[in-house]
Amino acid sequence: MISDKVLVVFSGGQDSTTCLYWAKKHFREVFALTFIYGQKHVREVEVAANIAQAAGVHFDTMDISFVSHLGRNSLTDTSLPMDEAIPEGGMFPNTFVPGRNLFFMSVAAVYARERGIFHLITGVSQTDYSGYPDCRDSFMKSLNVTLDLAMGEQFSIHTPLMWRDKADTWALADELGVLDIVRNETLTCYNGIPGDGCGTCPACKLRRRGLEEYLARKH
Amino acid sequence: MISDKVLVVFSGGQDSTTCLYWAKKHFREVFALTFIYGQKHVREVEVAANIAQAAGVHFDTMDISFVSHLGRNSLTDTSLPMDEAIPEGGMFPNTFVPGRNLFFMSVAAVYARERGIFHLITGVSQTDYSGYPDCRDSFMKSLNVTLDLAMGEQFSIHTPLMWRDKADTWALADELGVLDIVRNETLTCYNGIPGDGCGTCPACKLRRRGLEEYLARKH
Repeated sequence: MISDKVLVVFSGGQDSTTCLYWAKKHFREVFALTFIYGQKHVREVEVAANIAQAAGVHFDTMDISFVSHLGRNSLTDTSLPMDEAIPEGGMFPNTFVPGRNLFFMSVAAVYARERGIFHLITGVSQTDYSGYPDCRDSFMKSLNVTLDLAMGEQFSIHTPLMWRDKADTWALADELGVLDIVRNETLTCYNGIPGDGCGTCPACKLRRRGLEEYLARKH
Repeated sequence: MISDKVLVVFSGGQDSTTCLYWAKKHFREVFALTFIYGQKHVREVEVAANIAQAAGVHFDTMDISFVSHLGRNSLTDTSLPMDEAIPEGGMFPNTFVPGRNLFFMSVAAVYARERGIFHLITGVSQTDYSGYPDCRDSFMKSLNVTLDLAMGEQFSIHTPLMWRDKADTWALADELGVLDIVRNETLTCYNGIPGDGCGTCPACKLRRRGLEEYLARKH
């Protein structure tokens, strides 16, 4: 598929950086959009800007801090401990911002439409979705229809990582020739440490397990 | 239908005030939520608060000014003339905030969920939708599914005015015993004048035509 312009919802983490290079392969002009929403790890934005510059794509940020006022959760509320476990009686881990991807994608679509962009890429994965309903395939497909109906346009949401686990995502980065860039330059760690990260938070553990699995499979 | 709690997306205009009283008839506990988003007519909020108080329902506001930064349009950008006509080469009148109802309803859903409310009411009407795709029935139904999938919940979006024109909406207000309240206390006018309004803006003309039609039909 060679097409026109595409917007990547871009955090500067492993998943969306892999998507950024996937976008570069499949589209003529790539726009990376990073959201600022009062998350603890604001360093993400700096990291994202650097990766986008090195990749030679357009880069922009949008402040949607309002999202962090909608629900109480540990990614934006520093008074809560970071905990991936599902709280007693709760459905989701407390890093969950309810409907976060709904707002990210909706804002991205309006932003894209203003610029004549109708392809959107998000790095969500149902395989590693950690219990977040807004990372699932059925949600993204339903949202695609809803965005089309909301604005009378025809968007196309691409989810290249939807059915990949972390090892498969490392494999894709390698296939795209950017394994080292993704390994060394991206920030996935909940404690804000780029590259291999703190090694102990849930995001680091998931990322490392995937990398080890991929490297073992490769050799 | 007698049910539990309901949230009304409430502007203090004719349509949403009629919906507020419809909600009072059908639900035990009614919450009115008014959005502040940098619209010219901020007086709406004051009017909305007064109507909600008189109706004896919960009232709250939420600032989602970010919506007004997403697209250039005359409802939030004072440098543009107010014009309901569809601009040359454009699909929609320039009062259109692209995807506005997408954001209103999404924020309303997250707000409601935090409070254990899963019924939502909006006063949109496909009959009088003035070319806005996000007022159409298919959009609202698609959005309902998308919200459910986004949050793993089961919302129910009610649209009591969907198939009513302005005359039918006046008829509903009369049926609910609040014709005078809706006529005298609400604000629909683009120039910020409550009740019968300025009489010359497109919203006033539409509202008056509907009232005259309903009153002629009644007698």
